[in-house]
Amino acid sequence: MSADLSPLSLAERHRDTLDQALETIRTRAYWSPYPEHPKAYGDAEEGRAAFEALLGGRFPFASEQPGTDGWTGGEQSPYGIELGVQYPHPDPDVLLPAMRAAMPAWRDAGPEARAMVCLEILARINARTHEFAHAVMHTSGQAFTMAFQAGGPHAQDRGLEAVAYAYAEQVRTPGSAEWVKPQGKRDPLGLHKAFTAVPRGIGLVIGCNTFPTWNGYPGLFASLATGNAVLVKPHPRAVLPLAMTVAAARDVLAEAGFSPDLVCLAVDRPGEGLAKTLAVRPEVRIVDYTGSTAFGDWLEANARQAQVFTEKAGVNTVVVDSTDDYRGMLGNLAFSLSLYSGQMCTTPQNLLIPRGGIGTESGPRTYDEVVADLAAAVDKLLGDDARANALLGALVNPDVKARLEAAPGMGEVALASRAVAHPDFPDAVVRTPALVRLDTAKPDAEAALMAECFGPVAFAVAVDSTDAAIRLLGRTIREQGAMTVGGYTTSPEVERQLVEVCQEECAQLSLNLTGGVYVNQTAAFSDFHGSGGNPAANAALCDAAFVASRFRTVEVRRPA
Amino acid sequence: MSADLSPLSLAERHRDTLDQALETIRTRAYWSPYPEHPKAYGDAEEGRAAFEALLGGRFPFASEQPGTDGWTGGEQSPYGIELGVQYPHPDPDVLLPAMRAAMPAWRDAGPEARAMVCLEILARINARTHEFAHAVMHTSGQAFTMAFQAGGPHAQDRGLEAVAYAYAEQVRTPGSAEWVKPQGKRDPLGLHKAFTAVPRGIGLVIGCNTFPTWNGYPGLFASLATGNAVLVKPHPRAVLPLAMTVAAARDVLAEAGFSPDLVCLAVDRPGEGLAKTLAVRPEVRIVDYTGSTAFGDWLEANARQAQVFTEKAGVNTVVVDSTDDYRGMLGNLAFSLSLYSGQMCTTPQNLLIPRGGIGTESGPRTYDEVVADLAAAVDKLLGDDARANALLGALVNPDVKARLEAAPGMGEVALASRAVAHPDFPDAVVRTPALVRLDTAKPDAEAALMAECFGPVAFAVAVDSTDAAIRLLGRTIREQGAMTVGGYTTSPEVERQLVEVCQEECAQLSLNLTGGVYVNQTAAFSDFHGSGGNPAANAALCDAAFVASRFRTVEVRRPA
Repeated sequence: MSADLSPLSLAERHRDTLDQALETIRTRAYWSPYPEHPKAYGDAEEGRAAFEALLGGRFPFASEQPGTDGWTGGEQSPYGIELGVQYPHPDPDVLLPAMRAAMPAWRDAGPEARAMVCLEILARINARTHEFAHAVMHTSGQAFTMAFQAGGPHAQDRGLEAVAYAYAEQVRTPGSAEWVKPQGKRDPLGLHKAFTAVPRGIGLVIGCNTFPTWNGYPGLFASLATGNAVLVKPHPRAVLPLAMTVAAARDVLAEAGFSPDLVCLAVDRPGEGLAKTLAVRPEVRIVDYTGSTAFGDWLEANARQAQVFTEKAGVNTVVVDSTDDYRGMLGNLAFSLSLYSGQMCTTPQNLLIPRGGIGTESGPRTYDEVVADLAAAVDKLLGDDARANALLGALVNPDVKARLEAAPGMGEVALASRAVAHPDFPDAVVRTPALVRLDTAKPDAEAALMAECFGPVAFAVAVDSTDAAIRLLGRTIREQGAMTVGGYTTSPEVERQLVEVCQEECAQLSLNLTGGVYVNQTAAFSDFHGSGGNPAANAALCDAAFVASRFRTVEVRRPA
Repeated sequence: MSADLSPLSLAERHRDTLDQALETIRTRAYWSPYPEHPKAYGDAEEGRAAFEALLGGRFPFASEQPGTDGWTGGEQSPYGIELGVQYPHPDPDVLLPAMRAAMPAWRDAGPEARAMVCLEILARINARTHEFAHAVMHTSGQAFTMAFQAGGPHAQDRGLEAVAYAYAEQVRTPGSAEWVKPQGKRDPLGLHKAFTAVPRGIGLVIGCNTFPTWNGYPGLFASLATGNAVLVKPHPRAVLPLAMTVAAARDVLAEAGFSPDLVCLAVDRPGEGLAKTLAVRPEVRIVDYTGSTAFGDWLEANARQAQVFTEKAGVNTVVVDSTDDYRGMLGNLAFSLSLYSGQMCTTPQNLLIPRGGIGTESGPRTYDEVVADLAAAVDKLLGDDARANALLGALVNPDVKARLEAAPGMGEVALASRAVAHPDFPDAVVRTPALVRLDTAKPDAEAALMAECFGPVAFAVAVDSTDAAIRLLGRTIREQGAMTVGGYTTSPEVERQLVEVCQEECAQLSLNLTGGVYVNQTAAFSDFHGSGGNPAANAALCDAAFVASRFRTVEVRRPA
């Protein structure tokens, strides 16, 4: 692709989109410039063909990265096919200085030019959404539709949102100011002051297996838009979507007259642990990470030369007190547990249900009834294999499968997981979620409740009362962290207590969702993903704190 | 003092001031609501009497702090008098939970009410500026006028600036939003979303000896305005101004219907190291610190449960290449070196002068001439003892005196320090600055150059060339950090290089100051104090990054 990427032309194409994004992060209303439906994106088969053309060879970069000391890669699709793509393995002693050398011109371009280039990168990615959907599907195991939406327009939304926050933050201080201080009868003091947003250094983005683009774009675009170079270190099992992203960024940067080395890719050799090496390099001044708590904590403790933004593990809770739409609640919960086989950081894990039952619009339901009805709702939702495949996707890796297989040992199984055959991919590991009964009165419940069991396992937890549920919710957020909290209640007092505990422990709360919005989904420009205030994450996507420390302001004062 | 502190009354009194502050942090023009001249503050003798009434007894809090397990204190004025004030020593196991318990009501009050209460606190402090001036003078050793201005209105400016940034940041997200997502022919999805700024926890402010209020207020007010409780742990030698501040805050909070325990004081027993204990308490989620690099680094490494904002040591450089106002330059530098005996974190230390001399409007000057002329300028500035006392103040503590006395051993003395007698305080240790010649060609220069020598010692450093000076400047910022950089040049190319190195290494640059503005002074609302991007400080006073992570936003979503 080639186009006029002069500053004027870029601004003409993208300034309105940026302005709308700036407006929407203020109103938090619904908006997206990137359509969700595949029909908006031209020929699906072309996208598939472009994806397939990438398989089984060296990933084609238009311009070679500096410091490439060999090629590596070994992605295996959760759907069973071998991707066979090879990516550059970096020599950091060559690559990082080359990236640093590219920064001054990018810094001097200023916040608006950087934002426009970022929006052009996103536009190029958006135009290839079909191709990205296949790449995300075959690395994350997401079903195609989800890979298309969450890996495509929704991820692009999160990238654009980060650009908007970054731009807004940089232009809050003017480029220059005249400062005139009265001195009574004497002449006033006068200074001319110039302010420049300067980057920190190199931003390292450490990608995850499940949402390589959705979780990777905010950090990537926030760092790039604030003048930093960005080195992307994908999860070894989910390289392709980020390699495509890096290539798109490099193309646009080069065409716009900047060094493509402002965005580079770094891929591990098997077992190498490259992220650990890169994260503590002095050139790396920002780290964005999504993944395990253990490595997130390691980064926070060791990458001390950098600003470290982490999204780690958490235990998400739903408190079920009462509802005036029992069927809607069950359907909504069943969907939340099933979507992408529960492999979202936002999927509920612990459903806290009073042992004495709950109130509904048609009278009380016992704990046993609620559990049985929920199990039935999941069963019904996933009863048809085609629909089950479209919702569940595949298990992302053998660890998830192992956890699922261990679930029956954790309590009494209310709903067993079953294998679903995939019509196109016989080796895909597709499983429905397991629902396991726990009771806080029993000694073995605590260990299961108070640890993340990532994957398609949910616990229907019998608790003494709604009060006890809310106390347990608070302790769970405080000790384990939570990306999401759900609550169902018709009682204003219970609602007040749920809000209070979420404000006290800093977690995002969804109340009484019974329709087509699910606790595990957050919309860019409107919802905050994570709070940054509990152990599940030290940052939220996206807010000013996520961008404000990625750059600094240098002032030059001269006599007026 | 008692007044109507209803929300309406507070808004009437302070909303315009907040709006003007919000406007000024955008324009960076000159503004302050707090006059600088003592005449604006009523009876000077009343202020002195109020200060003297505090001496020699227990500090009078209107309401007792919880968890006080005894009283402690032992401040000795740098002017030689014993303050003899006793302050509460805390039992953290009682005090911290009491502070936490005060937070929900403060959180629920919302950003505007909190800002108004903070402005009322600042107004009360402002009205007592005379009294504060004496307290700052007799703890920091600043001369009265400086203690009055820097410890009074300028500190209040920095507090107000932090409130403005905090307010702006919290209200960027609306209190609520209606989110409506179209679904083609189906009904749109609709959610009502409520957003609440929630505090982190307790903010710990660890004060410094030299600028207890100026350096303490930004963190104190930023944390308080974002809904946190604030525990102030002053430097053991500079407690009184912060105790007065805490008392004023407690009074206003109580009168406005909040718990006074939102702001508390914690004072060390001698040698106790209370800051270390408090900084790692789980309740403490924010730390603001000004002081040594060693303890700042310790806090950053160990107070991992908290957001840590530090201002540490640095080595400030002035590059002298050329000037078209030689006399103005000498006068400006002489003043900068003399003000508060060089005991500002912004005072220049290394004056880099090409060995071959510099250009001036009346022809070249050799290195020797520049050094001799600068020495003469300092001598002339401080020739009169009354004027010297008014500029210098007293040495803040014996460490500074010891460093000054060791200075002659570091190189050839170009200007010896002399003792100045103080007419009112015979025991005050008042000293003029020493100017010591170093030469980068000699092996002993490196160690002296590359370490902070805090106090009235400056080095006139002979360097190979302006190019060499700029390279040394870059290395000094990178390795040692810098709060300020100065430069004198008539060459556009040298100016460009100075700007480039300061942008690259992230330091604040003042060029060609020859009049009544000095490199060591930064004005609130307009200048950034520190950059947060080099080793001297991890934060700047004040920007969005200084406030944005002090609170988090909790969202509650409900079906519309």
